[in-house]
Amino acid sequence: MILQPVVNIAEICARKGVQNVVLSPGSRCAPLTIAFARHPNLTVRTVSDERAAAFIALGMAQTTGKPIVLVCTSGTAALNYAPAVAEAFFLQVPLLVLTADRPPEWIDQLDGQTIRQQQVYGRHVKQSFDFPVDLSHSDAGWHTERLVSEALNETVAYPAGPVHINVPLREPFYPNAGEEITCSQHMKVIEEEQSLFEINSMQALKLEQEMLYYKRVLIVAGQGNFDARLLQCLQTFMGSTGAVVVGDVISNTQQLSGVVRHQDAILACVDTEKMKSLQPDLLITFGKSVISKSLKLYLRQYKPKAHWHLQPAGQVADTFQSLTKIIRCTPGSFFHRMAGCTREDSGYVQAWAGMERKAGDFLNQFTATAPYSELTVVARMLQALPNRSNLHLANSMAVRYANILGLSAEQEVRVYANRGTSGIDGSTSTAVGCALSSNRITTLLTGDLAFFYDRNGLWHNYLPANLRIIIINNHAGGIFRLIDGPRRQPELEEFFETRQELDASNTASDFGLRYTSCHSLQELDQALPDFFASDAGAGILEIFTDSKSNATEFAAYKQALLQAL
Amino acid sequence: MILQPVVNIAEICARKGVQNVVLSPGSRCAPLTIAFARHPNLTVRTVSDERAAAFIALGMAQTTGKPIVLVCTSGTAALNYAPAVAEAFFLQVPLLVLTADRPPEWIDQLDGQTIRQQQVYGRHVKQSFDFPVDLSHSDAGWHTERLVSEALNETVAYPAGPVHINVPLREPFYPNAGEEITCSQHMKVIEEEQSLFEINSMQALKLEQEMLYYKRVLIVAGQGNFDARLLQCLQTFMGSTGAVVVGDVISNTQQLSGVVRHQDAILACVDTEKMKSLQPDLLITFGKSVISKSLKLYLRQYKPKAHWHLQPAGQVADTFQSLTKIIRCTPGSFFHRMAGCTREDSGYVQAWAGMERKAGDFLNQFTATAPYSELTVVARMLQALPNRSNLHLANSMAVRYANILGLSAEQEVRVYANRGTSGIDGSTSTAVGCALSSNRITTLLTGDLAFFYDRNGLWHNYLPANLRIIIINNHAGGIFRLIDGPRRQPELEEFFETRQELDASNTASDFGLRYTSCHSLQELDQALPDFFASDAGAGILEIFTDSKSNATEFAAYKQALLQAL
Repeated sequence: MILQPVVNIAEICARKGVQNVVLSPGSRCAPLTIAFARHPNLTVRTVSDERAAAFIALGMAQTTGKPIVLVCTSGTAALNYAPAVAEAFFLQVPLLVLTADRPPEWIDQLDGQTIRQQQVYGRHVKQSFDFPVDLSHSDAGWHTERLVSEALNETVAYPAGPVHINVPLREPFYPNAGEEITCSQHMKVIEEEQSLFEINSMQALKLEQEMLYYKRVLIVAGQGNFDARLLQCLQTFMGSTGAVVVGDVISNTQQLSGVVRHQDAILACVDTEKMKSLQPDLLITFGKSVISKSLKLYLRQYKPKAHWHLQPAGQVADTFQSLTKIIRCTPGSFFHRMAGCTREDSGYVQAWAGMERKAGDFLNQFTATAPYSELTVVARMLQALPNRSNLHLANSMAVRYANILGLSAEQEVRVYANRGTSGIDGSTSTAVGCALSSNRITTLLTGDLAFFYDRNGLWHNYLPANLRIIIINNHAGGIFRLIDGPRRQPELEEFFETRQELDASNTASDFGLRYTSCHSLQELDQALPDFFASDAGAGILEIFTDSKSNATEFAAYKQALLQAL
Repeated sequence: MILQPVVNIAEICARKGVQNVVLSPGSRCAPLTIAFARHPNLTVRTVSDERAAAFIALGMAQTTGKPIVLVCTSGTAALNYAPAVAEAFFLQVPLLVLTADRPPEWIDQLDGQTIRQQQVYGRHVKQSFDFPVDLSHSDAGWHTERLVSEALNETVAYPAGPVHINVPLREPFYPNAGEEITCSQHMKVIEEEQSLFEINSMQALKLEQEMLYYKRVLIVAGQGNFDARLLQCLQTFMGSTGAVVVGDVISNTQQLSGVVRHQDAILACVDTEKMKSLQPDLLITFGKSVISKSLKLYLRQYKPKAHWHLQPAGQVADTFQSLTKIIRCTPGSFFHRMAGCTREDSGYVQAWAGMERKAGDFLNQFTATAPYSELTVVARMLQALPNRSNLHLANSMAVRYANILGLSAEQEVRVYANRGTSGIDGSTSTAVGCALSSNRITTLLTGDLAFFYDRNGLWHNYLPANLRIIIINNHAGGIFRLIDGPRRQPELEEFFETRQELDASNTASDFGLRYTSCHSLQELDQALPDFFASDAGAGILEIFTDSKSNATEFAAYKQALLQAL
């Protein structure tokens, strides 16, 4: 017999809009497994490595914007979720994490798969609930139903994030023969209507007046999912106010006409006069993290007079060390309301536009003629991406190269990356989660270390046909050879780059993925169209480069860039 | 320039007896990496997947009994250590975990690889220290040196375990060109002399008198490393007192003459009279966890009149729900002091010995004649183990089969298993750590799920020639088909067993390991001698079985066992 309140968890999840559940096998969690697996309106998948399972769920939640439920058994299973839970916390992605546990009387009694699970995710969840273990009191139904509603509401309340429910379970874990699992008829679900997060007209008027003091307005868009309405409001605002918008590749602002995408190149410039011409009086920011190190360093040095950050709720980061005002509203509503704030041309748009053109032209020319290296490989690959596809950028160099080069508006590519914590640990799984949640071709661009680290993201029975994995294999953590500090150390090869010999051909064979390898730009140009063909099925394209020549070519790029700017 | 107190960490570790460091690559941790890598008396290895790195360190610490230092960069790297840290905590294995971090002013500012690292291991470390980030005050040298001494002392203080130091680091991370890294000349190290943990003669006298009340004394040895002196004291104690010792395979008591090793089989017996004849008046326990579920259930049902647990310090588990007295001394000193306590023969030794003989004979006969299945495979494999070798038993069925069958005294095999939390997540890595720390042939016995879960334990440049991996591949979590509950559910195959198609041939090829596969007992008998040859080099022996026939054969075993007892 499975306890009714445990069965009801699945039903409350379904009623509150959950569609997908990712679980990992276990005995202690069997009541949850059975409740979810038998629910007619939920899609349940099982992934054995909990680290990968949680990143897959993260990818699904990031792509759909809806909470994904994770279910694991007791013990270290719960700890293997921790990297993805932290990423979800900082990336603000809704996850409901259900960890089965032994009942309290059996904790610390040397029983198997028993750790101290209460609050196990520390400060990396929005909240951590304890499901009651004794359900005999008449308030138990109300308590358990309320708790699941509260937890789910919390996953999506701004800022979204992971919420944990620890569920202690006593035996029996399995229904008796012939026993039917049905949810209670009368269950209370608490809905939550979200605020619009807008400012009122008095606030807007005051801000408009304040904005008039500042001639040069720069907007920096941090990481965010594609948001058509936001872009529309921002486009209008740019037109009327002459504000400049800078957006990293993960900000999904490529479709904004006039957006600056080559800040990483532009702001490497060392000409003080040119740099001063780009300095804002007012900086307006929204969204999450920024990749471009040049942009961070530039704005920390060339500080604005004022810096407004738009964020509906939650803790605010002072990324550029210049924050002066927090405005509690959605960015879309802010730009919509403030779009009437027309101003005179200060030449600021032209200053940025000139540099953007120069950097763009340089990058096009350079990558078209430069020899085979990671930079030229990523340029070809970005150009070849199918229109209206998804791109997941793994951490370390993949996301950096892509951000240097940028994407064109016409491609309408949606970009994802685990930039909440910027770990290399879950990119493959996250991309799989994204592919599972979308009809679009979903490409993962990754390095060899990130790929092999998370091979288990492919170890399950749900690999989707729209998945494309591009591995740039330099047999090492090549980033360390691109940074001055480690490059000069005798420990470079063994302790920083960490040379590794694997290629992905065996992995592709293990998981039944098409496999193509490339060793030159010619081979790459030839391989890309077939690889990206919509009916080609899931595959790996492995591009071999040499860590040393990557470093040489990247130095040449930086040298040429400085001359071009 | 690297800060002197950070360089000094490596020197204090070396002076306090640390010999091995396992690090994972990163930039934030570069000062630690360089300090450790350049220390002349430390062996430093680098492993890219932090989850595997930490389990490798665990295996090394478990085998050597000495603290191993772990070093990782900031962000989710630290969280990937968490499963092994929890295992080390419950397994009582000394680890010093150094996590590089951003300085406090940059936490929560959307910078890369930044999470909330203080206290990140929650209640699964003995202590968590914050290395100071501002080192200008004159007390800083004393503070930092003291802190590293305290942390290392704590790793080995009874009960040993993991200790965390979070090390916030500001740039620069790398020494300047030509800069030499040397530790301070005058450093204070705090040594700690451990207590002997003995009881005095008055206490012993009282306990001896109390023991006279109890005719039938049963000793259960929990998990523990091989300890020659303990076994010697226990042997003498058994001889004079007529106490019976029961030891699981992970208790490393096989070399004790007269030890009961087949409790898992014996206590499956349903004859109440026979079971009563084995019931103890006094139960004495020591060590960590017990595998045998039959033993746990038996002792919870057939409770002793008194239950003494021998444990020098720390929280005590009441595994059998019968604990009445905690005795704070080492088991060795207790049995040594109490060995004079001679008593009359109560027939208790004979009762257990009779059952032990019966179960042993049955198991020998059954496994010699039964068809090919996991049970017979494990029996052959255990018999073929080289003398004086190490055996790491992965969780789930590997450790259970081995415990049912037991090892003979003559083999002098030392047995290891991650039974602190009993997760399947790190067995391969832990076995690699064991092999790296020993000259003996080190065999991992694992199932397919545990093996592929932790494939990254092989992904580094230090695979030792003495490593032997035996995978019993039934393409599923076969344990679920052996348990009544899940076997009866329609979700069995997809959500409990979690069928997976991999075999290990590609993995062997990826990592340059010899590979042999078996599909019958004949093939196995032929393969084992070559596989275990001391000069054969590291290899994988993959034994394919069928989950359904394993379940059938295991049911036949249980049936035959009941008749035999």
